Amino acid sequence: MVGSVAYDSVETPEGTNRHQLGGSATYFSLAAGYFTHVGVVAVVGKDFAARDLHLLKEHGVDVTGLEAGNGDTFRWTGKYTDDMNTAITIETRLNVFEHFRPSLPGSHRGAPYLFLANISPDLQHSVLDQMSPRPRLVACDSMNLWIDIAKPRLLALIENVDVLMINEAEARQLTGVRSLVGASEWLLKRGLKALVVKRGEYGAVVFHRDFTFAAPAYPLAKVVDPTGAGDSFAGGFMGYIAAVDDTGTEAMRRAAVAGSVMASFTVEDFGVGRLKSLTAAEINARFSAFVELTRFHPLGGGQGLPLVRRVA
Amino acid sequence: MVGSVAYDSVETPEGTNRHQLGGSATYFSLAAGYFTHVGVVAVVGKDFAARDLHLLKEHGVDVTGLEAGNGDTFRWTGKYTDDMNTAITIETRLNVFEHFRPSLPGSHRGAPYLFLANISPDLQHSVLDQMSPRPRLVACDSMNLWIDIAKPRLLALIENVDVLMINEAEARQLTGVRSLVGASEWLLKRGLKALVVKRGEYGAVVFHRDFTFAAPAYPLAKVVDPTGAGDSFAGGFMGYIAAVDDTGTEAMRRAAVAGSVMASFTVEDFGVGRLKSLTAAEINARFSAFVELTRFHPLGGGQGLPLVRRVA
Repeated sequence: MVGSVAYDSVETPEGTNRHQLGGSATYFSLAAGYFTHVGVVAVVGKDFAARDLHLLKEHGVDVTGLEAGNGDTFRWTGKYTDDMNTAITIETRLNVFEHFRPSLPGSHRGAPYLFLANISPDLQHSVLDQMSPRPRLVACDSMNLWIDIAKPRLLALIENVDVLMINEAEARQLTGVRSLVGASEWLLKRGLKALVVKRGEYGAVVFHRDFTFAAPAYPLAKVVDPTGAGDSFAGGFMGYIAAVDDTGTEAMRRAAVAGSVMASFTVEDFGVGRLKSLTAAEINARFSAFVELTRFHPLGGGQGLPLVRRVA
Repeated sequence: MVGSVAYDSVETPEGTNRHQLGGSATYFSLAAGYFTHVGVVAVVGKDFAARDLHLLKEHGVDVTGLEAGNGDTFRWTGKYTDDMNTAITIETRLNVFEHFRPSLPGSHRGAPYLFLANISPDLQHSVLDQMSPRPRLVACDSMNLWIDIAKPRLLALIENVDVLMINEAEARQLTGVRSLVGASEWLLKRGLKALVVKRGEYGAVVFHRDFTFAAPAYPLAKVVDPTGAGDSFAGGFMGYIAAVDDTGTEAMRRAAVAGSVMASFTVEDFGVGRLKSLTAAEINARFSAFVELTRFHPLGGGQGLPLVRRVA
């Protein structure tokens, strides 16, 4: 995966936390790391704490591709008000991230699965170009900024990836189509295999060529910090697919649930507080809770709903 | 069921439609009418069209309790902008509805299932008091207006009903609790069996004493008019439960899907355009589509997710 490592300062209705370890690469690789071996390509500054590097390594994350830049680590300051689905950016300091030109270690170029987190489409192209052979599945994220200033490059990228994971507003902005069904049709025509629409506390919907699957978010008594939920979702999604080495439709449905499971943990604490210390029992219990949350008896063979006889 | 019959004038991004048949009683009884025998208690004006009365009768709706008031039928004018989840009221003319005091025909007082649509808590109390014996399941709706001006009466009602169906903002306003999990706990402690939170295009969540169930909304290429979706949901929900005469937890999960099915049809056209002309094949096909939309393979007996060995 390629993405960002950051120190975030976050204010939510549940409190404030300064200089917490964050960034798409952090959330993604910790989440995916529960399922598979993850190699992270990103840049950190001279101020990057040894304990944070240790945390990634301890979680089995391969940091060979983690560059040390000349300057400070990327910093993001933001807040959430009552609408926990939308972050309000107060300050962004790109720092070492500004001149980041990802270069993949040889050992990463043959990785079977690739996630391009939210960075400029040019860098996403460059990473994809360094892969050989092409990975079995490539997924990418993006944001309103790139749709505003680099839409042609982003659309060109989308023609070469399998799965695009964005939020509702981004799907509408990118396609100019109001309904998500319409937006997904627009994107699938351009060669995408699946559009995954992330909807925060409303879950995620996978619009795949061959099926549509809606995964709810896990209803939590308290959402502490939504930062990183989308990248944790992507980590669970890609981690599951890599672990079973299966990109089929059944695997992709389960992957969306695995993604929702990981995102549900992330939002329970500030930063990676919860994500960094999960046990197999906790992860499996949450997966089972998703089964209980969504299951209902389908109708038996040939049997319909109990409709009145009058209905044709 | 007790509720309103109205003529609505509606503007949505898909167009404008004036004086369409609407009101909670109309949507609920047409939706529930596909599953069971529905008796409607409401009031219409002298201007109520014979064809609209015919429409209800033709759908098997028992109109014995449909009073003819001295004046015009209730009128609502509203619009939806890009946020199709929220109606903006332009004008409300209560007309005959203003002095509506529901009186149940003797034949309705023993009905096994009761839905109290969004009317004043005093009227809801009065209808419930007229029932004998108490129905097996009573569900009710409400709105911000009643929470503002009649909260104690509404809370007293909630202590005597089984299922409350409201939207997210109403659940928060009523309980003062931000999270839906917390709001549901607050309400379940007051004797409610289940809180059903309606979330428009994001579906509905049933917070029951014994389980939580999330039903997505059906992803549609075009939402034409969201008016009546909540009442159609309630109609499908209560209609299904009445048809199977089962208030158990498995029935309630399926009921929520039946509700989502009926709501998904309603929003496909203005007013009751779609709801009034459904076939059994269409309803069953949509139910099957919900199965496909939500299903994923749970983990086999004792088998967990494919987690890395490192995880405890």
